[in-house]
Formats: sequence, C-alpha cells, structure tokens
Amino acid sequence: MRTTHDTPFTAKPDTLDPQDWEAVRSLGHRMVDDMVALLAGVGDGPVWQAMPGEVREAFKTPLPREAGDLAGSYADFQALVQPYIGGNIHPRFVGWVHGGGNPVGMLAELLAGGLNANLGGRDHAPVEVERQVIRWSAEMLGFPSTASGVLVTGTSLANLIAVLVARTRALGGAVRQDGLQGCPLVAYASTEAHNCVSRAMDMAGLGTAALRLIPCDAQHRMDMDALAAAVTHDQAQGLQPFMLVGSAGTVDTGAIDDLMALSRFSRLHGLWFHVDAAFGALAMLSAQKRPLLAGISEADSVAFDFHKWAQVPYDAGCILVRDADLHAATFATQPAYLRREERGLAAGRPWPTDFGPDLSRGFRALKVWMTIKVYGADKLGAVIDRSCELAQQLARRVAAEPELEMLAPVALNVVCFRFRAAAADLDQLNADIVADLQEDGLAVPSTTMINGQLAIRVALVNHRTSEADLALLVDGLLAAGRRRTAANPQMNSQGI
Amino acid sequence: MRTTHDTPFTAKPDTLDPQDWEAVRSLGHRMVDDMVALLAGVGDGPVWQAMPGEVREAFKTPLPREAGDLAGSYADFQALVQPYIGGNIHPRFVGWVHGGGNPVGMLAELLAGGLNANLGGRDHAPVEVERQVIRWSAEMLGFPSTASGVLVTGTSLANLIAVLVARTRALGGAVRQDGLQGCPLVAYASTEAHNCVSRAMDMAGLGTAALRLIPCDAQHRMDMDALAAAVTHDQAQGLQPFMLVGSAGTVDTGAIDDLMALSRFSRLHGLWFHVDAAFGALAMLSAQKRPLLAGISEADSVAFDFHKWAQVPYDAGCILVRDADLHAATFATQPAYLRREERGLAAGRPWPTDFGPDLSRGFRALKVWMTIKVYGADKLGAVIDRSCELAQQLARRVAAEPELEMLAPVALNVVCFRFRAAAADLDQLNADIVADLQEDGLAVPSTTMINGQLAIRVALVNHRTSEADLALLVDGLLAAGRRRTAANPQMNSQGI
Repeated sequence: MRTTHDTPFTAKPDTLDPQDWEAVRSLGHRMVDDMVALLAGVGDGPVWQAMPGEVREAFKTPLPREAGDLAGSYADFQALVQPYIGGNIHPRFVGWVHGGGNPVGMLAELLAGGLNANLGGRDHAPVEVERQVIRWSAEMLGFPSTASGVLVTGTSLANLIAVLVARTRALGGAVRQDGLQGCPLVAYASTEAHNCVSRAMDMAGLGTAALRLIPCDAQHRMDMDALAAAVTHDQAQGLQPFMLVGSAGTVDTGAIDDLMALSRFSRLHGLWFHVDAAFGALAMLSAQKRPLLAGISEADSVAFDFHKWAQVPYDAGCILVRDADLHAATFATQPAYLRREERGLAAGRPWPTDFGPDLSRGFRALKVWMTIKVYGADKLGAVIDRSCELAQQLARRVAAEPELEMLAPVALNVVCFRFRAAAADLDQLNADIVADLQEDGLAVPSTTMINGQLAIRVALVNHRTSEADLALLVDGLLAAGRRRTAANPQMNSQGI
Repeated sequence: MRTTHDTPFTAKPDTLDPQDWEAVRSLGHRMVDDMVALLAGVGDGPVWQAMPGEVREAFKTPLPREAGDLAGSYADFQALVQPYIGGNIHPRFVGWVHGGGNPVGMLAELLAGGLNANLGGRDHAPVEVERQVIRWSAEMLGFPSTASGVLVTGTSLANLIAVLVARTRALGGAVRQDGLQGCPLVAYASTEAHNCVSRAMDMAGLGTAALRLIPCDAQHRMDMDALAAAVTHDQAQGLQPFMLVGSAGTVDTGAIDDLMALSRFSRLHGLWFHVDAAFGALAMLSAQKRPLLAGISEADSVAFDFHKWAQVPYDAGCILVRDADLHAATFATQPAYLRREERGLAAGRPWPTDFGPDLSRGFRALKVWMTIKVYGADKLGAVIDRSCELAQQLARRVAAEPELEMLAPVALNVVCFRFRAAAADLDQLNADIVADLQEDGLAVPSTTMINGQLAIRVALVNHRTSEADLALLVDGLLAAGRRRTAANPQMNSQGI
C-alpha cells in the first residue's frame, strides 16, 4: 500500500523550507482541487467503510529517518486515510452530534497553517480575530460585551473551565494555592447532562459524586422540584451548593432545560449558573428556535462548539464568562518569561492564556471568523431551522411506520426511535441494524439508551442532510430490520 | 479598511456548500500561491509590526447577519490579519519558545480542514494516523510500544493529563468519584520548571502549594540533595509525595535536569516520574544531543510539543504514558451515547477520548504525520543540532562584546544575556532594548528574569534562523542600547 519514495523532499541545507517552492505550490493546487472534488461529490460514495486489515497495518512503520517524497506522502494520504474517514462530511452521517464542516473553514485552515500563529498571548492580529469571535459570541448569546471568553478544543474543555471558575467563586482565589482540603462543594445537573460535565468535576478534584444528577420530566428537562429538594438536602448536610449546570440541547434527545427557571433558582441560592449548550447555543441564530433558549443570556457562563451546528471544521469550542475578572482570577499567572509590557509584541494584555489552561494555542479563531463573515449568521440560523424541520419530518415518518417506534419526544434536532420485532433482545437487534447500515456505507446513525431501551439516535446537525437522505436512511433500516427478523424465525416485525 | 461585499457568497438553498465550487477552487489556488509567496520571502519584511489603532478597530463589527463576499473576506484577512501576525515564521523571531512552522504541515492543515475528522473516537483512519504518531513518539523517546498517548493542544494540557494520571495512581480510581478530601499529596519540580506544571496542580485541585519547587545548581538543574531533603521533610509531616517532575529544556535557560538521577530517586521513593520536555524531547532526534536526555526513557510519562522544535504548525502537543491501563483508568468513561461496538463505526476501542479530557478533537495528527514522513527524523534532528550550534555561536559573540554580559550557561538552545551600562535600572533598559528591536521590526527576542536580573532571552527554535540573522540581532541591540545610553547622560555603556 505504501508509495516508494522516488524523489526525497529536498529542503534547503539549514531549514525545512524547500529548495523548490514550486513543488509545494503545485501540490497545494492539486490538494485544493482534490478537496473541492471530494466535497462537491461527497454524497456519492459510502458514508463510511471499514479499514481493511492491510490498510491498518500499513501505518505501522518505524519512525522514518530519511526524507520522503512529498507527492508520495500525499499519495499515502489518498490511499490510506481519505477513503477511511469517519464520514461526518457526508450527507447521510447523522450519528452522535457532528458538524459537516464547510469549504470556507477548510480554506481558513490552510491560511492558519501558513501563518502558524500562537494565540497564547502577545499583541498581534490573530488574537484580535479571536477577541472578535468572542464578542460575536457574546452578542449571539445576549451576554454583555464585557464578557470574557476563549476558544478551546471543544465543550469538554469549556465545561472544565466553567467548573474551575465556579470553584474560584465559591472558594476564593486561595484554592489555587491551597487545593481542595475537605471541600464541601456540590453541583447540580440533570441526569441527561453530558458526561463531560461529570468529567470536569472529576478533573477539578471535586469528584463526580459531588455532581448531583437531578431527575427529568417527560420532556427530558430537569425537574425543578427535585432540584430544590436536592439543594435543601445538601444544605442540611452541611454541604455547599455552588453550581447549577443547565443543558441546552441534551446529547440524547436534544432537550433544553427551563433555563429561565434555572437562572432564577441559581440567583436565589447563590449558585453559579452554567449552561452546557454544546450544540444548542447556535440555535440563538434562529429567530424561530431562540425562544426555547430563553434564560441563556442570564447565565454566568456558557460552553458551546462551533464545529457542531455552526459547521466550522474540527476543533473549535468556546467558553464565555460573564465576569471577566473572576475568569482571569482563575487562570492568570505571570511567570517572568511571560512578562507583559506596555509596548512591543509583549503588550496587549489580558492574553488568551489568562482565560484558560492553554499557553500554546493554534489559530482556530480564523476558521470561525471566516465562516461567520462569509455565510452570515442568518444563513447559519437557516441551516439550524432546517435541521429541526428534518427532525420533525423524520419523527412523522417513524410514527407512520408500524415497525418503528419513537422513544423520546423531539425537542430540537435529535430523533430517538427503534425497530420493533418479537425479538428476545430488541437492544441487540437495534444495535445490529445500526452497525449494518454503517457497514453497508448507506448511513451513519448512532445509538443511545432511552429509559433503559437502546435507541437508534439520529442527530440532525450536518448541513448537507436532505429529506432524500432521511428517506434512504429509514428505508435502509427497515430493510435491515426485516432482513434480520426474517433470518431469525423467532423474530417477527409485526409481532409487537 | 473593510471590503464592501459586492458579491455575497451564494450557498445552495439548504446547505453551506457553494452554488459555484469553481470560486472556492480558484480562491484556494490563490491562497496557496499567496502563502507560498509569504513563506518563500518571509525574511524580507519586518518580524513584527504594531497594529495601527484603526486596524484594531476594524475588527469590531456587529455579528454579520447577511452573507459576505468570499474573496472580500479573504481581502479582509490580507489587510487586517496577515501584516500584523506575531512573526514566529520569520527567521529573526527568537522570542519565547516558538516553532517556525513548515509548508508540509500547512498543506496538511488544508487536508485536515477538508476531511473535518473528529478524533474523539470511533473506527476510522484519522485515528490510526494519530496512533502511529504516538507509536513514533514512543520510539523516539525509548518508550515501550505498549505506551499510550494522545495529542493535545500543547504541553500545558499534557502536563495536566500527567498530573491526573499520577493522582489516580496515588489515590486509586475512587478519587474520580470522591474528589480530593483532605488530600495529603505533594509533588516536586525545580524552581526552573515551567509554570504550567503549577497550573496543572491548581486545576487538578491539589493546589500549587503542594508542588514543592526545589532549588537548582549553577547549571539550573534540580539540586538532588535539596530534593531528598524536601521529600524527607514532607514524609515526616505525614504528607504523601506522589510525583516528581523533571524538566528537559527549562523555559528560561534550556537546562536539562539529571533525568537518570530523577528516575532512580522516583523509583526509590515510589514517585510517578514525569518529564516536562516541551521542546527538549525532540532533541532525542539528534545523536549529538540525545545523551543529555538520558533517563527520559525511564519516565512514567513525558509531555512535549510538536509545534516547537519539530516545527509542526500550531497547535500539536503530546502526552505519552508508560502504563496505558492507568492512563485509561484516569479518563475513560462510557456513557450510553458513546457505546462501543465490535463492528461498524463505533468499534476500534480504546478511543482517544479514553486518554484525555477532549471528546471533540481535530485532526492535528495529520500535520505531524506528514511533517515526519516528508522531512524524516534525521532532518528534524539536524535542525535541532543547528539551533544548538547557533546558540553557542551567539554565546561566543556575547562573551566577546564588552557591552554584553551572559546571565546563564547555554545548555541547549537558549541564550540569556543583557546589555551593560551605568544605568540606574538595567532591567528597564534591557526591557526597553527588546521592545525597541520588536517595534523596529528587526528581531523578536523576549525577556525573562535570571537570578533577579532581567535577561534578554534568545531561544533558538525556529528552523529559519541563520548566523546572519543573529548578527543582525546583536548589531541591532547594541545600537539600540547605545542609542538609549547616549540619550541619557547618566548612562554609560563602558561604565561597568
């Protein structure tokens, strides 16, 4: 599978720059052409295909000591990588919650790769681009323009930052030096909250057990009475409630907590109100969906991703914090080698590193900035409306098919359902159907558990998905279900 | 400064894909041409120039609602961003510890932007690329091939991961649920360790005070006797020493702790031995420098960056852990919506998200993989040798100039010195000289404090820097120093 290296890349004697820039330039053109062709025809091929064993093995070479051929390395990419991607650029990828990317963001990555900017700090335009992205985010979410924020890999990191800022507010800046000694802090989120909130509690040393998972109502939203009872109970135990995490677009069903009620509750009890809006935040760009998020503008912090519903290429998450001083008090330090000045390149404080854990930081802001500038917020909002409309259409189709069964209401853009049959193990049957569809390359939904039952989960996030794609998906999964039930006489899809 | 949007970008009605792929393709070609021209002539312009106020203001527009012009947005990039970058691609950027980037990595970013892969998990080739980068890293560092690892933004995150894995080893997996309750853990690093080790202790809830900063010898390496005394003292206090952090290439002077001694000490006292080798790790690719790192292969974990001495575009850090099980025990969770399967796209466990905090993860592995394949490890090692050689040359020049004074020995690639004069405030004078050089666009060194004195710090990391660049730098800073002392009759550069 591997290309022989006929023409080793020749760099100038003392640098990594090539003797022949023309070779880089012309290969760059070819890559642009190939990537445009890939995206222009992205729906034609399979969504995903399994890597043959020999492809997987072909990666496993010793560390190459000598220079390789530039075009040959690209040929390796074309042979080993491109055919076996996860497929989230494909219109029929509706698994997990993945954005589809966009060509403007792709070109921005080329530019960012060329500039090679480090956005940890200092006084240069790439940092201004990021600041503008943060200001636009504040505007989108109805936050004051004085809010602070920073781009990170994704909402997992953004939620960690939120937990740490809330920890500082609860315990004061001394916690940074002294650590958590017999710490009584407890936080609250719903049982539907994303697991990364719990991971953040773990990493921050507070422990996942200190995150109370509050039951939900039939709409998969946090039960406010249960929340009040939990807080009262914890206070009676001498614990210190410090943070309430609302979900705006839960991972399993897309449900949105009553953020207004959560905001009021937080204020009443002196809690830090954080919203995990990993994909939901972008629904603020839709006039139609914005009311569902009422209350998000009251939050102390919001975590979300641009690489999901805003279709910016991976990775690009964001944390926004209302109180910039508290945010900086959680992360800022000033070692001698990062001395800030009033002029020269070391000016421009506060620096992005004062608002998060990263000191080395790539120019992910550029792909966000260009995506927003070129498409405009209204178009991004229209894509979101369309996702939600497709989710409703799919829900109607599922309801109309006797062999299918909805497992959760559709709040936004996630549809959870299953194939019904007289199978002993419906969970296994539905997991098999999903894997069948994936292996056929026809479509990529994923699975989750809803009320103890395995659900086929279709998350409409990808801007390329159409009605026709969903029709193919449903037809395909009905066929797969029937095939599996026919193959096994114990099963009968009419039986339930 | 802003371009009028003559031709709003026209996407297809229901997606973000363009009506006209040709416009994307041809702009992509132009961007490749422009970036190649930028890099081919990168030494010609100023290293850095201050953003005029009107440029800074030009970013501050309301969130654009309507579509913009694609070429116009690129024109904005060219007018507002490209001229005002930090300058670390320029040969005379020797500030902080920044890599220069490389054109192969730049092209890889274009490809990664197109594929839009999410490397949090699942079974696809981009994850295999990352696994191969981790295997190559293990080979480079002399780790077993069973070591685990994951790419992150940078060493700040990688060090946090190391602290968390060490925390799990010390306290068991229960700490994830229970949090730190009256935790007696203490860790050790030298006074020269990078501040992000301390930040990691802070974030992990252990507190920065629980990181004992051990004094250094004249070579800026951790004093082993002082370390032994500190551990004995802490044990006597009933505290639990759990982690020892060695530095391989300190941020201020490039010093390398005696890693072999640290390894033996760790083993003797049951400590987790972590090495922060942010830039130093790559010196393993130099036959000449490798002996300085002896002992790194014995570490329990190593954190380092590919965007520094390996010149991969920002950002690309790495954590490598000897004990993959313990690594996974620190991060792995299995929520229902991330159910792992034996076949289909949800196969392929363990997933990268099992080894770090990120669930959404871009394809930063591709730029590392292609950089290594195209240049080969020997060429990267040669660049490192050359950096160290340039550092020695600069040190000789500094020693030969009566107006200059070395402030620390040169262990590897960092040269700390200052301009001498009869100034009342030599620290301010040297800070001014550095800012003068930056504002003139002539060169970008940075500053730090060495034994209480402000040093001009030249970190030779960038592959483009040459002898001629260093000559310009020294000539420029002598001229700046003389200008400043001449302007102030109190100062006299011969006076000391």
